[in-house]
Amino acid sequence: MTYVESICIKAKAASRDLAVLGTACKDKALLAMADSFENNADLLKTENSKDLEAAKAAGITSAMLKRLELTDKKIAQMADGVRQIAALRDPVGETIEGYIRPNGMEVRKVRVPIGVIGIIYESRPNVTADAAALCLKSGNAVILRGGKEAINSNLAIAKLIQDAADKAGVPEGAVQIIETTDRAAANELMKMKPYIDCLIPRGGKGLIQTVVENSTIPVIEHGDGNCHMYIDDSADIEMANNLAFNAKVQNPSVCNAMETLLVSEKIAAEFLPGMCTRYAEARVEIRGCRKTREIFPQTIPATDEDYETEFLDLIVAIRVVSGVEEAISHIEKYGSRHTEAIVTSDLNNAKLFTSRIDAAAVFVNVSTRFTDGYEFGKGAEMGISTQKLHARGPMGLEEITTYKYVVYGDGQVRG
Amino acid sequence: MTYVESICIKAKAASRDLAVLGTACKDKALLAMADSFENNADLLKTENSKDLEAAKAAGITSAMLKRLELTDKKIAQMADGVRQIAALRDPVGETIEGYIRPNGMEVRKVRVPIGVIGIIYESRPNVTADAAALCLKSGNAVILRGGKEAINSNLAIAKLIQDAADKAGVPEGAVQIIETTDRAAANELMKMKPYIDCLIPRGGKGLIQTVVENSTIPVIEHGDGNCHMYIDDSADIEMANNLAFNAKVQNPSVCNAMETLLVSEKIAAEFLPGMCTRYAEARVEIRGCRKTREIFPQTIPATDEDYETEFLDLIVAIRVVSGVEEAISHIEKYGSRHTEAIVTSDLNNAKLFTSRIDAAAVFVNVSTRFTDGYEFGKGAEMGISTQKLHARGPMGLEEITTYKYVVYGDGQVRG
Repeated sequence: MTYVESICIKAKAASRDLAVLGTACKDKALLAMADSFENNADLLKTENSKDLEAAKAAGITSAMLKRLELTDKKIAQMADGVRQIAALRDPVGETIEGYIRPNGMEVRKVRVPIGVIGIIYESRPNVTADAAALCLKSGNAVILRGGKEAINSNLAIAKLIQDAADKAGVPEGAVQIIETTDRAAANELMKMKPYIDCLIPRGGKGLIQTVVENSTIPVIEHGDGNCHMYIDDSADIEMANNLAFNAKVQNPSVCNAMETLLVSEKIAAEFLPGMCTRYAEARVEIRGCRKTREIFPQTIPATDEDYETEFLDLIVAIRVVSGVEEAISHIEKYGSRHTEAIVTSDLNNAKLFTSRIDAAAVFVNVSTRFTDGYEFGKGAEMGISTQKLHARGPMGLEEITTYKYVVYGDGQVRG
Repeated sequence: MTYVESICIKAKAASRDLAVLGTACKDKALLAMADSFENNADLLKTENSKDLEAAKAAGITSAMLKRLELTDKKIAQMADGVRQIAALRDPVGETIEGYIRPNGMEVRKVRVPIGVIGIIYESRPNVTADAAALCLKSGNAVILRGGKEAINSNLAIAKLIQDAADKAGVPEGAVQIIETTDRAAANELMKMKPYIDCLIPRGGKGLIQTVVENSTIPVIEHGDGNCHMYIDDSADIEMANNLAFNAKVQNPSVCNAMETLLVSEKIAAEFLPGMCTRYAEARVEIRGCRKTREIFPQTIPATDEDYETEFLDLIVAIRVVSGVEEAISHIEKYGSRHTEAIVTSDLNNAKLFTSRIDAAAVFVNVSTRFTDGYEFGKGAEMGISTQKLHARGPMGLEEITTYKYVVYGDGQVRG
């Protein structure tokens, strides 16, 4: 039996007991974990400093270093996230739907855990805590496989989680971490269909593609975010400016940042000069269509490739369109079905946009940056699904559950 | 462009309009279809007779012939099924969940169609009508690929469906059938990921395995049904006898028929003689464990392989167990997570069984034969899912939908 297989077998065994574990025990473990993160902040920072040193030596970008770093503030946020998950209602056992059939059978659709969830992720060590806490609360066993750049941090966090879970009486094997970061172990994990019910890749495009192509286990895909914001003729100019600025600039490196700004030609001359000036002042590189460049000449010409690209950087493509219909067509052609927003005060256009756009999240007068488990009230997230089956958008507790039909009768037979 | 590709492109285009098509238009088309089936019963029977003749010449079993045959009664049932789907509430646009976040954002989780659904199925021509009607009502475009044994029947049914849909104003391409039954076309269909959002195989084990292994499109697996019924010590003997008889005998060739009967040792001596006699009278072959054979000697010894087998025939394996715990262990080891039933009058054992058993449907005092879209009140079914992601158990309208988050705000930005 290989190392990965032994982990999988333990997880499968634990999942049977976890499925019927009481809420009180799970919440006790979660609160103990949160306390443990804070009480052991120095230990976590010491282990994290090993990762930071290795990362610096490997010459990673300062943006990546920032994501990797565990500060007191981040540790407190991590603990707070776990406490929030403890405070959420236990999804297990919820009757999603229930009714009595004409023959007297009482049919209930009851929420249950999926079983064993594998998560393969990169960089940010807080994912270790978020994923473990979400899986525990939802009664799933979890196998964590973090990236090599955060291995010391991840192992330290996982150890605190396991100790807290043990003391609270959570079955052994509920939360496990793959202690090696070699690729062979990850590849082996992707083939463990008899033990793992669902695999969630969370990270860059390369990671997700590798998992989708190699996994024999059903995958919940956390895909690209080529997100758009469309400024309608009827938009409030100041609101539109603030939304388009926030969507691009507040955190450009994440999947819910806006990549292309679409502007109605009826409002372009009024809207674009102020917007582009503000972008330029924030050092955002603007790649504009012909009409954009007529209005704001200090702009690089936008290409078709720009419209296809998730920049994940301080770069924005701007295109002037004839109105909401052309905006919808552009998004249909280039969008990645993640988050699409309209800024408008016209009810018909809001309705047309929300009904026509096929994406996980469709926003009216809200920054694209809000597609996020925490912002949606889910406490934390396992990732953001851009696929249509099972879960779409931010995945919190409910999204890592399934259901079974429980039917009570008094001897019904089929005629 | 190949034939299959042209069908896929049409389906994708139709799906955009279908997603926002009004309920009135969809229901009008469904009612017209139902009428058309009945008004053209002679035509359907003529086309069906070609399939029946070919099937007889090929020497298929009488059970298969029966499934293939379209009688006036079956045509009326087919029409009735479509009318029931018309009468169901349109799932599209339903707000599954909605709330306001502390920052004032109004978040709604809204039910939407999946998009384009492919269904690859065998034998029974009524699947053509059921699948087309369910997909149309739920706003999905559908590509039908039936088996060669029913091709004339399927083409005739599909033609009536398309004519009715056209007249009602349903977008062209909403319901399409692959007119060829060669394998190359089916294989090509399984690779059409850019156009098809979900593939549902419905038929024998071989068909499902082929689709699961070859499809690049997400598949909803309609797996085996190795279903059990456990007779608890506290069971009402007469009820248990009737349930175990119905579950095995009423229609042994289907996935929700019972294959292994588990009996508590505390009730075996009282229950088994009558049960086995009744099975024997109905020409059910009994394969029993040692204890079963002590009680009812005219029994073939059961092997491990018997416990693993979905007989789909008048064969039953019987095993005496020490009680509900051993029954649960047996089912965990041999069950296929389809339907599992307990017959009991003990509340604790009912609760233990329903919470511990991991299956799409868990029944108390009900025949396993009820795991069925129609019996669950869904009008009809696309199939029965034995997987845990997306849909579990009978798949009706809701199970072929997904959702999107629609969020309204008034300028919220993320800080």
